[in-house]
Amino acid sequence: MSARFYSLLLALLLAAPGAFAETLKLPDNLTGFGSPAGESFLAESTAKEAYFPLASNFLTQKTQAYCGVASIVMVLNALNVPAPAVPEYEPYKTFTQDNVLNDRTETILPRQVLDKQGMTLDQIGAILSTQPIKAEVRHASDASLEQFRTQASSFLAKPGHFVIVNYLRKAMGQEKGGHISPLAAYDEKADRFLILDVARYKYPPVWVKTTDLFGAMNTVDSDNENKTRGYVLISSPSGE
Amino acid sequence: MSARFYSLLLALLLAAPGAFAETLKLPDNLTGFGSPAGESFLAESTAKEAYFPLASNFLTQKTQAYCGVASIVMVLNALNVPAPAVPEYEPYKTFTQDNVLNDRTETILPRQVLDKQGMTLDQIGAILSTQPIKAEVRHASDASLEQFRTQASSFLAKPGHFVIVNYLRKAMGQEKGGHISPLAAYDEKADRFLILDVARYKYPPVWVKTTDLFGAMNTVDSDNENKTRGYVLISSPSGE
Ligand SMILES: [Ca+2]
Ligand SMILES: [Ca+2]
Ligand SMILES: [Ca+2]
Ligand SMILES: [Ca+2]
Repeated sequence: MSARFYSLLLALLLAAPGAFAETLKLPDNLTGFGSPAGESFLAESTAKEAYFPLASNFLTQKTQAYCGVASIVMVLNALNVPAPAVPEYEPYKTFTQDNVLNDRTETILPRQVLDKQGMTLDQIGAILSTQPIKAEVRHASDASLEQFRTQASSFLAKPGHFVIVNYLRKAMGQEKGGHISPLAAYDEKADRFLILDVARYKYPPVWVKTTDLFGAMNTVDSDNENKTRGYVLISSPSGE
Repeated sequence: MSARFYSLLLALLLAAPGAFAETLKLPDNLTGFGSPAGESFLAESTAKEAYFPLASNFLTQKTQAYCGVASIVMVLNALNVPAPAVPEYEPYKTFTQDNVLNDRTETILPRQVLDKQGMTLDQIGAILSTQPIKAEVRHASDASLEQFRTQASSFLAKPGHFVIVNYLRKAMGQEKGGHISPLAAYDEKADRFLILDVARYKYPPVWVKTTDLFGAMNTVDSDNENKTRGYVLISSPSGE
């Protein structure tokens, strides 16, 4: 090949959108948040009260085992739950992936176990319940696709209501294991939920079909006594 | 006062939206991202190409001096500039507020100075210029309100184009010193820009009037040879 061929190829590669892309390619069934279709889903969604406070507190999980910790911190800050001090931010307070873990969470999930195998669905519920909020755990095996769609979409449409999901990535075409992130919106027309994926070094936020998401939650977690994964419905105590 | 009075008062306080609020109250001239007006501004904005990749990479500054570092990391990740490794995320790569600082940035702004007095407008431009992108520094004294509005809004409307602003908070009614954050959108109808404020423990993202933002940039920075603050126009090398 000529030098001219290579210089043209280089120019093409540099000009191509995504020439710099760092995150993994999405499978066809998932729609990226920033794609034209993804932008339309957000625009046409009428169940996105959760979106604005969560987007204002969107985080990258601190380690590859901290997806549950990051999801919990996002929801606590989005709910404006009174937060512990952070030396660096004195006199301001906020939840971080460090200060959300304390003696009470240690009895639920020791850091040593967390670091090795992450968090289960039931541990998300138990850790959230150490805060002055309401958290209801739903295993996929105890719900139906229709119940999940109705409950989650109605939570996302109300101020002070949030949903965290625990799912198996490979069941929806991603790499690869069990994962946890908050939902931020539901688009009825596309029948898709927006996941604000906390592994931001790996995947962008995605719009996933309800059937694909429910299928990925309806999988067995060997770290949780072979119970299925699922979702947590979270609200502030006043129920607002 | 009776116990009944206090119990009513407590119920009222708990039920009030924002009873849990942790961030500072916004002055009347600023509109919160999640307020009904803020949601409308985003919906009606036609200059928000920058919004989606920035929202996907929104960060909290690591210390109270790191607003410039956090802003740079957000833009580099939004541009998908090839990133250094992060031990915790192996094999994935991303810019963080730690790995963005290196031997080259140390010659521009030693960490010891950064930790004490943060970053100046010219240092933002110089540090961005160590990466394979284009960064043009504009001091407010060398621009007009109209030039800023036109340049910034046209950047926010194009893929691969970003704007970081350096302004004096108290000049737009906030607490209190010099600050740095990325712009994410412009709403022509309201003539307001959306600032994704990286001091997320302190303020939510805000929509600010162009005149208020320009006024807050058109202030003297004693850490930068008494030059005015201003903005940095950033784009990928292909100009896309
Ligand atoms: Ca709202
Ligand atoms: Ca908060
Ligand atoms: Ca777009
Ligand atoms: Ca990236």
